[in-house]
Amino acid sequence: MAELRAEEQDREEQDYSLDTDLVDQILEAVHARDTARLTGLLESLHAADVADILEQIGGPDRRALLALWGREIDGDILSEVDDAIREEVIEAMPKDVLAEAVRELESDDVVDLIEDLEEPQQEAILGALEEADRAAVQQSLTYPEYSAGRLMQREVVTAPEHWTVGQTIDYLRATDWLPDQFYHVILVDPAHHPQGYVTLGKLLSAKRATPLRDIVEDSFRSISVYQEEADVAYAFNQYHLISAPVVDEHDRLIGVITIDDAMAVLDEEHEEDFLRLAGVGDESSLSDTVPETMRQRLPWLGINVMTAILVSGVISLFEGTIERLVALAVLMPIVASMGGNAGTQTLAVAVRALATKSLTDSNVWRVVRREALVGLINGTVFGLVMGLVAWTWFGRPELGLVIGAAMVVNLFVAALAGILVPLGLEKMGADPALASGTFVTTMTDMVGFFTFLGLAAAVLL
Amino acid sequence: MAELRAEEQDREEQDYSLDTDLVDQILEAVHARDTARLTGLLESLHAADVADILEQIGGPDRRALLALWGREIDGDILSEVDDAIREEVIEAMPKDVLAEAVRELESDDVVDLIEDLEEPQQEAILGALEEADRAAVQQSLTYPEYSAGRLMQREVVTAPEHWTVGQTIDYLRATDWLPDQFYHVILVDPAHHPQGYVTLGKLLSAKRATPLRDIVEDSFRSISVYQEEADVAYAFNQYHLISAPVVDEHDRLIGVITIDDAMAVLDEEHEEDFLRLAGVGDESSLSDTVPETMRQRLPWLGINVMTAILVSGVISLFEGTIERLVALAVLMPIVASMGGNAGTQTLAVAVRALATKSLTDSNVWRVVRREALVGLINGTVFGLVMGLVAWTWFGRPELGLVIGAAMVVNLFVAALAGILVPLGLEKMGADPALASGTFVTTMTDMVGFFTFLGLAAAVLL
Repeated sequence: MAELRAEEQDREEQDYSLDTDLVDQILEAVHARDTARLTGLLESLHAADVADILEQIGGPDRRALLALWGREIDGDILSEVDDAIREEVIEAMPKDVLAEAVRELESDDVVDLIEDLEEPQQEAILGALEEADRAAVQQSLTYPEYSAGRLMQREVVTAPEHWTVGQTIDYLRATDWLPDQFYHVILVDPAHHPQGYVTLGKLLSAKRATPLRDIVEDSFRSISVYQEEADVAYAFNQYHLISAPVVDEHDRLIGVITIDDAMAVLDEEHEEDFLRLAGVGDESSLSDTVPETMRQRLPWLGINVMTAILVSGVISLFEGTIERLVALAVLMPIVASMGGNAGTQTLAVAVRALATKSLTDSNVWRVVRREALVGLINGTVFGLVMGLVAWTWFGRPELGLVIGAAMVVNLFVAALAGILVPLGLEKMGADPALASGTFVTTMTDMVGFFTFLGLAAAVLL
Repeated sequence: MAELRAEEQDREEQDYSLDTDLVDQILEAVHARDTARLTGLLESLHAADVADILEQIGGPDRRALLALWGREIDGDILSEVDDAIREEVIEAMPKDVLAEAVRELESDDVVDLIEDLEEPQQEAILGALEEADRAAVQQSLTYPEYSAGRLMQREVVTAPEHWTVGQTIDYLRATDWLPDQFYHVILVDPAHHPQGYVTLGKLLSAKRATPLRDIVEDSFRSISVYQEEADVAYAFNQYHLISAPVVDEHDRLIGVITIDDAMAVLDEEHEEDFLRLAGVGDESSLSDTVPETMRQRLPWLGINVMTAILVSGVISLFEGTIERLVALAVLMPIVASMGGNAGTQTLAVAVRALATKSLTDSNVWRVVRREALVGLINGTVFGLVMGLVAWTWFGRPELGLVIGAAMVVNLFVAALAGILVPLGLEKMGADPALASGTFVTTMTDMVGFFTFLGLAAAVLL
């Protein structure tokens, strides 16, 4: 029994969520202003977990913790904390601690750190860097936001293409600025154009006399510095890249992107799509204050109130009809709700397919046909169901007929809207996930109410 | 101008979607039964792109292509094709080609390939493997689906912890079974317990005499073979892991998971959550046939039709009220729609926060309070707006008052439901993304109609 419990505990630890007891102990130490105990609790944690703790405790506790422990914040923790509280953390750090923290970081991490900060904080951090690093960071900041140029690190390990394994190993042993993480040696020609790459595994297992050319990987992709980061993440996932060289407009090697950064971008892109589908601004964090949260949500609710009024306008065309047969008011939300759900299903599949580049000109009409057919069949199935329900409920077979027909029309339109609206947005260069939800449900609501009430007016009265 | 166009074209190619012209040429070659031309077009493509083409062309074209080109399918292409068409591809491959394709793959890829296949196809593939590989794959298949055991590769590069850099390099040069991709040498004690790891970069840059112990990484995490793959992906992203050792229940090293596999899992998990939020079964592919698509979508629409009927039941309680004031039927969808939208916003934020383990016992009440407050303020804002709109539209201030009050109540309830429903599902061990959408909108619909029509009955009549 004791063993079982230990095992269970083990399992819980294993899911990587923060231990609530630990957080409680940390808060106790903060409230007791016990810096020694606080340091003891925090110092063995991974920077990402310290950042999570800073995000999860409330504002006053966070400020108290930072006041006690601000000197211990290092570059890694700074990189990990969410944008929503980063400025607050930076402000709490003594200037010399901040300078040292920033100097530890590689150029891509510094860029990631400062790109969303206000001018004065940016200046403070740039000022703390050494001349060469500052130039590298400023150079990266000249590339567009969300481009490969912002994502890459400038520390690149290269070798001339005519070298042997032995020469390369000797060179690496003699070099003292190697990046913390690198997985390939990139072969370059004299003009610094990347020509291919060699994995470190191959380098370690080949004989010293082997020419690098003989162990070069056969698949090799370089990334333009202006490439959008979403496409970079896609390429890493699609082609199983571990790192990829970044080149400028003259095809010269200027940096390298590694898979851990690509994975972080992939994660963010997915999160954005998920939140956008639900009508939440793409940046959202649990540490956001009430006014920040309002700012993310109000615009979408504002659009929705306007489209909802439009939809009401459609209903108001049929006030007379409803007055004479109030069962229509009872049943009409069913037609709209089923249309909205069916449309959202198609929409979600279409948005994902566009994001994974699997919906293309080659298959678009086949997919539209499939969705239309599915919509028609689903409409028929649920039209029959609702027809029977309405007939039984209100004892009027014509009412069943009207709701059944409205269902077929609405689920068919929902399917078409669900696929054509995101396709149209994509063609216009907009993000298909951004506004599709509101468009599609407004359309299905209007069509649903109009066909149901319109048919009722024509047939029943 | 010509230059600009070339550049534009270049840009389009750069977004990694399949070139439509290329697909057209491939289809032409298929229709002309021109195997040589087909091979010419396909052989330079990455396996992932060939797989995408197989998925994007229609069923008849795919079968024709496979009939012409089945002998050229290799293990990589087989690994890349979507589950939805994999069986079809395998059936089209000659037995000897299939055997050779499978033998090329590493154990984790074979496991991934066969775990969803039917028994006879599984047998065929296992039969094609060499004895040792077959045993490794069968062993992996004994671990639960979606566990680290299914994800790991068994080819692990280890070294005794007392070795030096030179000894390790000599060992690697003498070993002929090294995996294609490896990023660390894992240090093990005599009982094969992992003790730490050394990056290949450090191994290459250190002097031969350096003991491995001196260049070991300070952060080191091993993963239990029973760990859920979603948690594995989370750990890779949270702790920036590149590869991680997998251990059995006695803490003995039995495999390794690399970041490319973790990234693929992260991608799938996100996709599942996205589709579930929209009420689509978690497996969905553009190559699915109409019956397969129906099977994914019907269950959710079926649940929705039942909840919609429930909601209609609420409205039917107020038939008399609506009969006397038909403006209520016109306005009532607005209250429901705003509640549904606000609830979905909160829900999406809560589901994401649970998935990223950032909503925990430590901050749950603060977040619930924030959401409730946001719901109340949003309710007041849009209650005022709709109150004025209804007053102006129908010329009855009391109607404005009723809809305003119903809005406040409904947006408050929506916020609470949006956070409490996913929390409740998580506590019960269910996936919070799975059923939350339907629960939350049913709740906001019922509350919305009930408060609006109920208040109207009390105040207006």
